[in-house]
Amino acid sequence: MKLSDIGERGLIERLSRKIAIGDDAACIRFGNSYLVISTDMLYGKTDILPEMNFEQIGKLAVTVNLSDIAAMGAKPIAFLLSYGSPDMEVDDFEGIIKGVEKQCKKFDVTYAGGDTNETDELILSGTALGLAKRPVMRSGAKVGDIICVTGELGTAALGVEISTKKLRINEGKILKKALEPEPRVCEGLVLGKYASSMMDISDSFAVSLHEIAKQSRVGAEINLENLPITENARKIAEKLHLDMRDFALYGGGDYELLFTIPKRYLSKIKRNVEFNDIGQIVKTGVVGLKNGKTLKIEQRGYEHFKKDKQ
Amino acid sequence: MKLSDIGERGLIERLSRKIAIGDDAACIRFGNSYLVISTDMLYGKTDILPEMNFEQIGKLAVTVNLSDIAAMGAKPIAFLLSYGSPDMEVDDFEGIIKGVEKQCKKFDVTYAGGDTNETDELILSGTALGLAKRPVMRSGAKVGDIICVTGELGTAALGVEISTKKLRINEGKILKKALEPEPRVCEGLVLGKYASSMMDISDSFAVSLHEIAKQSRVGAEINLENLPITENARKIAEKLHLDMRDFALYGGGDYELLFTIPKRYLSKIKRNVEFNDIGQIVKTGVVGLKNGKTLKIEQRGYEHFKKDKQ
Repeated sequence: MKLSDIGERGLIERLSRKIAIGDDAACIRFGNSYLVISTDMLYGKTDILPEMNFEQIGKLAVTVNLSDIAAMGAKPIAFLLSYGSPDMEVDDFEGIIKGVEKQCKKFDVTYAGGDTNETDELILSGTALGLAKRPVMRSGAKVGDIICVTGELGTAALGVEISTKKLRINEGKILKKALEPEPRVCEGLVLGKYASSMMDISDSFAVSLHEIAKQSRVGAEINLENLPITENARKIAEKLHLDMRDFALYGGGDYELLFTIPKRYLSKIKRNVEFNDIGQIVKTGVVGLKNGKTLKIEQRGYEHFKKDKQ
Repeated sequence: MKLSDIGERGLIERLSRKIAIGDDAACIRFGNSYLVISTDMLYGKTDILPEMNFEQIGKLAVTVNLSDIAAMGAKPIAFLLSYGSPDMEVDDFEGIIKGVEKQCKKFDVTYAGGDTNETDELILSGTALGLAKRPVMRSGAKVGDIICVTGELGTAALGVEISTKKLRINEGKILKKALEPEPRVCEGLVLGKYASSMMDISDSFAVSLHEIAKQSRVGAEINLENLPITENARKIAEKLHLDMRDFALYGGGDYELLFTIPKRYLSKIKRNVEFNDIGQIVKTGVVGLKNGKTLKIEQRGYEHFKKDKQ
C-alpha cells in the first residue's frame, strides 16, 4: 500500500493514533500557560507560485506558520527557519530572509535562528512558537454555536487559478491574495477568548469545516448565500466562466480563521473583530442551505499524496 | 555572487548579522528559565546513507535535533517533524515514524506533531524544544579552561567512508556509529551546570573548536596524542590506508559534545560523565601539539554550499 492510496489525510489519521495531533499546532503545558508550536514546510515546486518574488516567498514561510498559531488563539513569539536550496544568487537568498524578517517584525515575533542546507529544490521549513492561556482546539464546537469565518473566501484560489492557467486578466488585488496572504494573528488573539473551536482554512473551507465537525462530533449547516465572496471576485470568476462558490468552499490558500462561538458572544466579538457569521452547529451532517434546498458539502480541498489532485 | 562563493559558513555569518544566531539552538527567556529551540533538516540525497533502514532514518532526524539541545545544556521536552517524501510504501513511512517515536521515548521527549508534504526527495525537518536554567553558549570559554570532548572521535566519519566507498571491511560497530549516532542528552544536562562553553561536533571537531575560539575570542591548544580514537578504529583505518587523525579532527557525523570547563570542576564532573580532557584554552591560535611540535588545526569539516566538499 502506497501513501497515494491513503492520501495525506489518511496518513495524518494514522499518525494521530500514535501522537497527540489533530490540531493546527501542538500544545505543551507550561506553568499557567500553554506553549503552542507549529511546523509547516513550503516546497518550491508545489507551494510557490512562479509570480512570487523572493521577499514574498520568505513572507509566506512565516505566514503559514503564524496562521497555525493564530488558529489556536495563541500569541506568536518566535520563528525559526530551516532553509534548503540549490546554489543561487546571494541577493536572492537575502531577499527571502528579508521577507522572513519583515513578516516576523510585523507581528512582533523574534526571528530566532534556524539551519541551512543544500537541496535540489527550494525548501523553507518553518517553526513558530506561541503562548496561550487557553488554546482553542478543533474539538470544542457545541450544537447551537454560530459558525463564523474571517475575511473573504475563494479569492486566493481564484488568484492561483489565474496565475497557473495564465488567464488573461489584470487583477492585482486578487493575485495579491494568492501571492501575499496574511495570517489572522490579531483576530486569533481576540477570538481565543471566546471561540469554542477554531482552525485555519489553508487547505479549504470545506476541509476545515468537516474537521471541526468530526473532532467535535457534531454537524454543520452553512447558509451558502452568506459565504463572504467579494463582488469583484464574483465578477472576474463569471467573466472567466469559473464557479466562485466552488473556489470559496473547496479552494486552498485562504489563511482565514474558521471558528465557532456560543451565540451570546456574537455581538460582543463583532465590536472587536471583522468576520461573517455563516451558519450554525447542528447535530449531524455537513451541509449548505440555498433557496430552501439542502446541499452536501464535500470533504474536498488541497491534499498532498492524492492521486486525483483537486 | 552565488551561495557557493561564500559557503554555508559565510551564509550563516551573513544571517548572524541580522538575527541572534551563533549557537546550536535559539534561546528565549521564559520566566526563570530559557526555552531552547533547534531546527535541523535531513535531506535524503546528502544526509542519509544508503545502508540506513527506515527506522534508523527516523531516529537520526530526532538525534540531530536533540544533539543541538544537549549542546546547550538543556533538557529536551518536545519534538516535531515536518515530513516530505515522494509516494512510497505506507510500511516504510511507518518505519520512519517508529524510529522517531522510539528515539523520542528513549529520551523522555514528547513527539508532539508536525506536518506532511509531498516532495521529490525525502526531507525530514525536525524541531526540538528544551528547557534550561542557564543555557551554555559557545562564547563563554576563558583562558586556562580545560578543553574536553565526550565519546570517541572520527568513528562515524570512518563508517561513512567505509559505506560510501564500499570498502571491503566487515565492521558492524564502526558502521553503527555512522548509521545510528546517539545524542549526548544526559551528558549535556550534567555539563550544563559546569561548562563555560559547549557545542556539538556534527560538522567536525575542528569546525566546532574554531567556532568556540571565535565566539569566545580566545585560542585553543589540543594535545593531539590525547584525541580519543579507539584502538579498533585506528587498526581498521591503518588497514585501509586512511588517516584516522584526519577523520578525528575533520570528519563529520560524530554527535559528541565539545566543551570547556574551569579547571577546578574537572575531577568533580569526571565522577558523573565520561569524557576526555584534551587541551586548554589559550589567548590566540587554534593549534595541535604533538612531540613538542605545534601544528595548525584548520577550520575544515562538513559544509553545505561549498565548491570543494571535503
